[in-house]
Amino acid sequence: MKGPLELCLQEYVPVINEFLRGLQFTDTLGGRLAAPLAEAMHYSVDAGGKRLRPVLTIMAYRLLAEDWQRALPVAAAYELVHTYSLIHDDLPAMDDDDLRRGRPTNHKVYGEAMAVLAGDALLTEAFRLLAEDVEAGATTRIKLISGLARAAGRDGMVGGQAIDILSQGKNLHAMSAQQGELLEVLHRRKTGAMISGALLAGVDLAGGNASLRERLAEFGSVIGLAFQVADDILDEVGDEALLGKEIGSDRDLGKLTFVSLFGLEKARQKLVELHRQALGLLEPLEEKGEPLKALADYIVERDR
Amino acid sequence: MKGPLELCLQEYVPVINEFLRGLQFTDTLGGRLAAPLAEAMHYSVDAGGKRLRPVLTIMAYRLLAEDWQRALPVAAAYELVHTYSLIHDDLPAMDDDDLRRGRPTNHKVYGEAMAVLAGDALLTEAFRLLAEDVEAGATTRIKLISGLARAAGRDGMVGGQAIDILSQGKNLHAMSAQQGELLEVLHRRKTGAMISGALLAGVDLAGGNASLRERLAEFGSVIGLAFQVADDILDEVGDEALLGKEIGSDRDLGKLTFVSLFGLEKARQKLVELHRQALGLLEPLEEKGEPLKALADYIVERDR
Repeated sequence: MKGPLELCLQEYVPVINEFLRGLQFTDTLGGRLAAPLAEAMHYSVDAGGKRLRPVLTIMAYRLLAEDWQRALPVAAAYELVHTYSLIHDDLPAMDDDDLRRGRPTNHKVYGEAMAVLAGDALLTEAFRLLAEDVEAGATTRIKLISGLARAAGRDGMVGGQAIDILSQGKNLHAMSAQQGELLEVLHRRKTGAMISGALLAGVDLAGGNASLRERLAEFGSVIGLAFQVADDILDEVGDEALLGKEIGSDRDLGKLTFVSLFGLEKARQKLVELHRQALGLLEPLEEKGEPLKALADYIVERDR
Repeated sequence: MKGPLELCLQEYVPVINEFLRGLQFTDTLGGRLAAPLAEAMHYSVDAGGKRLRPVLTIMAYRLLAEDWQRALPVAAAYELVHTYSLIHDDLPAMDDDDLRRGRPTNHKVYGEAMAVLAGDALLTEAFRLLAEDVEAGATTRIKLISGLARAAGRDGMVGGQAIDILSQGKNLHAMSAQQGELLEVLHRRKTGAMISGALLAGVDLAGGNASLRERLAEFGSVIGLAFQVADDILDEVGDEALLGKEIGSDRDLGKLTFVSLFGLEKARQKLVELHRQALGLLEPLEEKGEPLKALADYIVERDR
């Protein structure tokens, strides 16, 4: 029998993919001339992936309303921003990756300049979608735009990426932060902010109250962090075939991880604690929270 | 005696610069950890420049209202987007420039990875400013956000940059466009779209009507194009000291320009024609249009 998470993914992901494939990235005048830009944008958007952020937007929306297809443009905006961040992350100047989801990275296919521009255009397009294509009043759309800008920007995802880059270089000690605090702030921003943002977007579209907002924002931050701790544990003990990279590769690179900092045992305790926190935050949602609970379980159980 | 353009610049530019310098790019939590990102953002934002786009927003606003300081957050959003585009343009993967406004480019000071992120963060911050910091109703703010996304995105500035990159490579002939048409679409998007967008933002904030919107959008597109034609002429005949680069450098690079395509004489005729068009569009504004007229004159007269 399928669990609540599988059922949700089976219901939402094909519709999300269809919506994303259907997005028009060219107008009539520039269609012919700028076609390669639109192609580069769709190459990465249509590459698949877990669609975690759009699924979270829809899950949060369904806590309060049934007509979840209304949330698709909002869910898509979060996926466009996530996709742009992957394109820029893969650039030679950043992580210098040749492969993403089993295919050559964007800059390997379209060149570095076009990859920079495709990322820039996707970020801009996400805000256009929220301003123009969401069925909601102007005040709600402003709330969604403000939420995305905060989740994606200097105090969210991009801020986390900046801390990540600084922590890898010689600047780490100059920053003189406690490394544990540093790691936690880094991942709450780099991953947690967009996960929280995607959840809040679903709540805001459905007109949820401040208490639910606060609860889901914290839930998103906690599972974003849990996701990273689980990743660090998997890098140490996981199945190479499942993980898609060599075991111990982070350690070999001298990267700061929860395992390298606290050891395997304490990292596992941290994961259990984050799992407990996440489930506690869902308790008041009762049965409606089952899909989000299953998602939290899935993130933690990748470790086994 | 100072003309209407000088008077405007003298009045607006110091206030715009002060507003930009005062923008906070860090929050309390991340302030210490992400300080280098905020520093990289301010490095380029505070570097000066003509502030053409914010000045245009204010000039357009003043066609309809007096309290022009209300337009500052909107004007600043356009300058942040312009600044991010310069940071990304200067990257080694793009134009590979070491100097900008007489100072080392962003990536020369902060590294390529941080320059990519500083650009991404500035683009995101521009939308946050429009959503949160503009004194206007939600419907007006949505209009401003939609306008910026269209001016900056796939069918605007970024689309123009993509066409520019494609036109420099072997893809030019594969695109099988008339080169004159190609050049015009390229510059109407790469430069014209943000100039039109900045003007429309001022009109929209002041609640201007559709006829004024249409008129100023076309004026912006025409002077954006004129700016580029004047640039191409200057590259052929201008004063090296004034221009800040070697005369004939575009020709030596085999770049497609209005001069290389049509010859110097026809390029000059084109500039005169665009000037005439721009002034014609301002006629119904009568005396109120003087500063915009002076700006159009300034763009054309750089040629002398």
